Amino acid sequence: MLKSELTLDSLSKGIINRDNTLLAKAITLIESTKPTDHEKAEQLINLILKKTGNSIRIGITGSPGVGKSTFIDSFGSFLTKLDKRIAVLTVDPTSTISSGSILGDKTRMERLGQNRNVYIRTSPSRGNLGGVALKTREAILLCEAAGYEMILIETIGVGQSEILIRSMVDVLILLITPAGGDELQGMKKGSVEIADLILINKSDGELETIAQTTQKNYENALHLLNSPTEGWTPKVLSISSIEDKGIPEVWQSITEYLKIVKSTGYFDKRRELQRLDWFHKVLDDEIMKLILTNTEIRKLIKATEKQIVNDIESPYTAVKKIINKLKF
Amino acid sequence: MLKSELTLDSLSKGIINRDNTLLAKAITLIESTKPTDHEKAEQLINLILKKTGNSIRIGITGSPGVGKSTFIDSFGSFLTKLDKRIAVLTVDPTSTISSGSILGDKTRMERLGQNRNVYIRTSPSRGNLGGVALKTREAILLCEAAGYEMILIETIGVGQSEILIRSMVDVLILLITPAGGDELQGMKKGSVEIADLILINKSDGELETIAQTTQKNYENALHLLNSPTEGWTPKVLSISSIEDKGIPEVWQSITEYLKIVKSTGYFDKRRELQRLDWFHKVLDDEIMKLILTNTEIRKLIKATEKQIVNDIESPYTAVKKIINKLKF
Repeated sequence: MLKSELTLDSLSKGIINRDNTLLAKAITLIESTKPTDHEKAEQLINLILKKTGNSIRIGITGSPGVGKSTFIDSFGSFLTKLDKRIAVLTVDPTSTISSGSILGDKTRMERLGQNRNVYIRTSPSRGNLGGVALKTREAILLCEAAGYEMILIETIGVGQSEILIRSMVDVLILLITPAGGDELQGMKKGSVEIADLILINKSDGELETIAQTTQKNYENALHLLNSPTEGWTPKVLSISSIEDKGIPEVWQSITEYLKIVKSTGYFDKRRELQRLDWFHKVLDDEIMKLILTNTEIRKLIKATEKQIVNDIESPYTAVKKIINKLKF
Repeated sequence: MLKSELTLDSLSKGIINRDNTLLAKAITLIESTKPTDHEKAEQLINLILKKTGNSIRIGITGSPGVGKSTFIDSFGSFLTKLDKRIAVLTVDPTSTISSGSILGDKTRMERLGQNRNVYIRTSPSRGNLGGVALKTREAILLCEAAGYEMILIETIGVGQSEILIRSMVDVLILLITPAGGDELQGMKKGSVEIADLILINKSDGELETIAQTTQKNYENALHLLNSPTEGWTPKVLSISSIEDKGIPEVWQSITEYLKIVKSTGYFDKRRELQRLDWFHKVLDDEIMKLILTNTEIRKLIKATEKQIVNDIESPYTAVKKIINKLKF
């Protein structure tokens, strides 16, 4: 993945000197599935770790079709006018059909794509983490080392991917579309309860009045829910990404939010918890790797697999036999 | 969880004798988070394992609001008229706001709920598997042991939960709502590519013509995609769950599908792969449990956590130190 002449040292220095080409190379390295790249990726993260943590990490979630990319284009453009350097991490062009009548996400961030203070990275989700790229956490750190002050992380908003993204960001924004009262039946407590800010997008044209009703309904529903963030009551705003409407208010709410969570200390506390969470994920991965690469255990597992396929043994009984042989 | 006088033996016999009260107790047992219940749950599964495998397992996925419960009510009612015994496994009333203006899922399966050949079980998702209950696989087996011939498993359709459900069912149905051409941008290849049958729901009233367009668009898009099932080309149908329209055609398509996959042997092959998948999940869980309950390792991890919180060490370096101490 890395050219041999490019050392990790010069790669890390290049990133810190804001070289976007090297930043892109670095993210490709950390996303590489080659075992030899794993070691390098870890060393690289160690090299840049002291230069990280100085951004605001913003998660943007919502169902497909809700307008996440369009919102990021509008919101990001607004932020660049405040002289902020923005990194956008989005997921997987391979999970959107980009030929035929269905467009890829990239075409929906036209304004941002042309701005030199903006770095956009689309990573493969590989299908296994519900719309959060496998190495999003590390990609955030690399972008921070490269001096990006706002990191916008786009993810599909249901279940696992939401919980994952919540464990990586300082602020979580949930986008929803205007919908009649009946459609609120589809509102999932889980999705709403982890958001700091709920934006009713597409509040323009015919949908504007429906958006206002939706906003009220969500505001009412929020009373029944817990806030994901100590000291902060989640807000609901109606916006139109296409018309750039309500975007300054989004930024204002985020500023208010940050002021509060920084003054209470919850901003730092959450970051600490997130580091712990990361540590445990790495630990779990490495433990499994250690055990499953052991030759004897691999043989045992292979033999057991045959019995499982032929329905000779229940998984529980089979696993118990393997576990009994593990001494450490 | 279990009354002391109720042995696992009599519990398993009760299930096999189609006692729904005991079936419910058994599912509660397997879902229990109490460590002492885990052992019992595994023994119970071992006791009933020989009586499992004789149902058709049907996954039903789709975004919130697409009408999954209403479809299950309509489709399930149709199946009961064919004298089928149906079990419905749905997820988590706690993730839907059931007070105020937002209704719980249960109220949307009114017809099914009153049928004595139908067993409906709603399980908590606990937020961590994106809408698939933690023990869905085991719940399926218990329902099969209780003689249910069709198991309908409802799940929220994005990312992780879809992949999980795909690894548990014989047929996967994706529900979508009619939407204009532009909305197809929100179509995710990942969701569509794992479905055997795509149903455009709410094809009634004003939406009927839009549904037909949506159906055509999806039929066209399917040409670009791989089928999840060897020998079968995924089908798109327009239906209305509220008006019971297109429901016999859904059953007809499933019958065709089953005829094909059973004749090619892929039905059995998939079940084998699913058993393997289950075995590996149980194995991973047990390995982690074995290691993380070791007193010495726990101490080491606790000490490391402090360094992580205080940002003294990178997770990678910290984990390496722990892994180096693991000998087995």
